Amino acid sequence: MSINIITISREYGSGGRLIGKTVAEKLGWKFLDREIIETAARESGLSEKFIEQSGEYASATTSLLFNLSVGNNPDGGMMSLYNEVFNVQREIICKAADEGRCVIVGRCADYILRERDDCMNVFIHASTEKRANRIVAIYGDDSKNPEKRLKEMDKKRRVYCRNFTGQEWGETHNYQLCIDSGFYGIEKSADIIAETVK
Amino acid sequence: MSINIITISREYGSGGRLIGKTVAEKLGWKFLDREIIETAARESGLSEKFIEQSGEYASATTSLLFNLSVGNNPDGGMMSLYNEVFNVQREIICKAADEGRCVIVGRCADYILRERDDCMNVFIHASTEKRANRIVAIYGDDSKNPEKRLKEMDKKRRVYCRNFTGQEWGETHNYQLCIDSGFYGIEKSADIIAETVK
Repeated sequence: MSINIITISREYGSGGRLIGKTVAEKLGWKFLDREIIETAARESGLSEKFIEQSGEYASATTSLLFNLSVGNNPDGGMMSLYNEVFNVQREIICKAADEGRCVIVGRCADYILRERDDCMNVFIHASTEKRANRIVAIYGDDSKNPEKRLKEMDKKRRVYCRNFTGQEWGETHNYQLCIDSGFYGIEKSADIIAETVK
Repeated sequence: MSINIITISREYGSGGRLIGKTVAEKLGWKFLDREIIETAARESGLSEKFIEQSGEYASATTSLLFNLSVGNNPDGGMMSLYNEVFNVQREIICKAADEGRCVIVGRCADYILRERDDCMNVFIHASTEKRANRIVAIYGDDSKNPEKRLKEMDKKRRVYCRNFTGQEWGETHNYQLCIDSGFYGIEKSADIIAETVK
């Protein structure tokens, strides 16, 4: 078993992005995160802000639009902007995976790279309490109800994943490794992941 | 974070029992498996075979009986044998956890020990294909349809867990670590678990 790509899906506030970055540093692998947004913006002509907001967070209320736009369009008819963002991101992710060892956070990379046999998919989760504390302390979330914000963001990621992949986000069987970062902490979670490919 | 107990829940045919045994050997911890059955049989007067069959595998068809028998019985009314087996096993598991570092496989030990803060809960899963190959090759399963057997056994464990704990067996959030043993193999899966407590 030779693993060249690690994808990290994560609950909002679980520290999954930082864990991914730490894993990449530990292994000396490329870390794909902000770069995807910048490249997608450059290639699509859309703003980075739009890519950032729509590239992982399909609003639950737009699911009908998604279903319509993601459907078969053999005549190459008009695709929604959301669909375009997904496709541009997919191309960037596939290209990066071809180019060499890397850690990719979010953006359904696990699904996009599902045909590869050198890809390991990780899901990071934590208790609502730990995540609420984190988004207040680290992200500077100033909402009075951080639990509500967690619920909203997780729902958006779940819907985005379901719309574009048909898969259930966070379902054990879709990942080779699921880690409770609230239990282990950031550093130890990154260690566990990095150790698996050594 | 000091971990003294590792519980292992596992899909049928995933090799979870062997992974648990290997983890215990690597760490020099006690391994609780057959001993639970033997002690429960001795203490309850029931046969080892009955304990083995009923101590993890509530038949899905008996769920109504379970619900009735597990319900509140403030007068200490008649408890079903299944309930008695659960309670005897619970006592054995709690006692073992008090006595020292150990690895416990199955029997809802994760739920039974949920109040402890030195317990790490692991779930082992694998693809149907890998598990079917395993139960034929290793367990000597001679059924013509090993996939059907996997489905039946997983269902029994799921129902048993739901009846006695109200928790969803295999749901990511109920475990600190979920591992695809079909991807990593037995030895590597055991390494990942053992490393987390070092």
